[in-house]
Amino acid sequence: MTHQIHDIGIAKQIGTYSDAIEVASGLRWLFTSGTPGLERSGKLPSDIAGHAEVAWTHIVAMLESADMTVHDLVKVSHYLLRAEDLPAYVKVRARFLGDARPASMLLLTPALVRPEFLLEVEAIAAKR
Amino acid sequence: MTHQIHDIGIAKQIGTYSDAIEVASGLRWLFTSGTPGLERSGKLPSDIAGHAEVAWTHIVAMLESADMTVHDLVKVSHYLLRAEDLPAYVKVRARFLGDARPASMLLLTPALVRPEFLLEVEAIAAKR
Amino acid sequence: MTHQIHDIGIAKQIGTYSDAIEVASGLRWLFTSGTPGLERSGKLPSDIAGHAEVAWTHIVAMLESADMTVHDLVKVSHYLLRAEDLPAYVKVRARFLGDARPASMLLLTPALVRPEFLLEVEAIAAKR
Repeated sequence: MTHQIHDIGIAKQIGTYSDAIEVASGLRWLFTSGTPGLERSGKLPSDIAGHAEVAWTHIVAMLESADMTVHDLVKVSHYLLRAEDLPAYVKVRARFLGDARPASMLLLTPALVRPEFLLEVEAIAAKR
Repeated sequence: MTHQIHDIGIAKQIGTYSDAIEVASGLRWLFTSGTPGLERSGKLPSDIAGHAEVAWTHIVAMLESADMTVHDLVKVSHYLLRAEDLPAYVKVRARFLGDARPASMLLLTPALVRPEFLLEVEAIAAKR
Repeated sequence: MTHQIHDIGIAKQIGTYSDAIEVASGLRWLFTSGTPGLERSGKLPSDIAGHAEVAWTHIVAMLESADMTVHDLVKVSHYLLRAEDLPAYVKVRARFLGDARPASMLLLTPALVRPEFLLEVEAIAAKR
């Protein structure tokens, strides 16, 4: 991680993320939109693992476009429709994050902008 | 827009917003609260278009108070109660945003802080 | 408050928070994760007041870890499962915030990352 982690013992009981992240002054920032598992071609994967894979591929592409990586992530928010999708989602997220430990928020929601979207991922990153 | 847009081809399939926004270092920031369509007089409009009009008028007023405009917006989050309100909401939002293209997140929620609020809008902006 | 408040007359109709907060350039930032009322021991309080007390104790601990206080808060988001918990939650929040007036967003959600979590609190703060 390029940012300072402030762990107080809560996040580690729940998942592989940090309780809080401190960002130094003087950095540039990247704010992504809520990003669904929708392919550039307009196709939608058939299951939650596919949605997660596509959404995270987009997040990484946006980071790269700004010359950043997952290690520059400050905060990631995850919006899912169904509680039963959590285990499959978390597995994909872990693969993309590697040892990066951004702050995190996960929310179940009755619906996203299109009813067929199973999830959206939203990220904030910062880098010198 | 005063910020750098990083588009990767997803947002444009869904609406008139950007996939991600990069903000330069050294700017000052404005964070608004979740802002409902509640008038300063305490009155509440009768329909979703009215709620949207009032909420966006408030967002613009807060931007102006900080010597900013919609072109300084980085990220806007939209919280709606009912999926069927989306088309009317999006129409009002488009009118206020003009050609500004902040990053965006739209979420359906079972309820906001008061049950009669049909929506809330929340914005982050930055300017030198 | 160490940040500039931009009030336009909406927030004060609803609660003790600011319509918008302006943050000067050149500060360092703290982003917390969505923080539930889960104790460091793994125990979960029995009611909403207990969840609120524990979650806010964690938020303050993260601020202190970054040499910040509630007066450095810029934005706080509150996620609750049940509308009837609002009065008890707001009472605890008010005690922790004192006269601090960050921007605020409150959302009811069908569920958080674990079904037994009654709330989560998420904060952004900034300080020189």
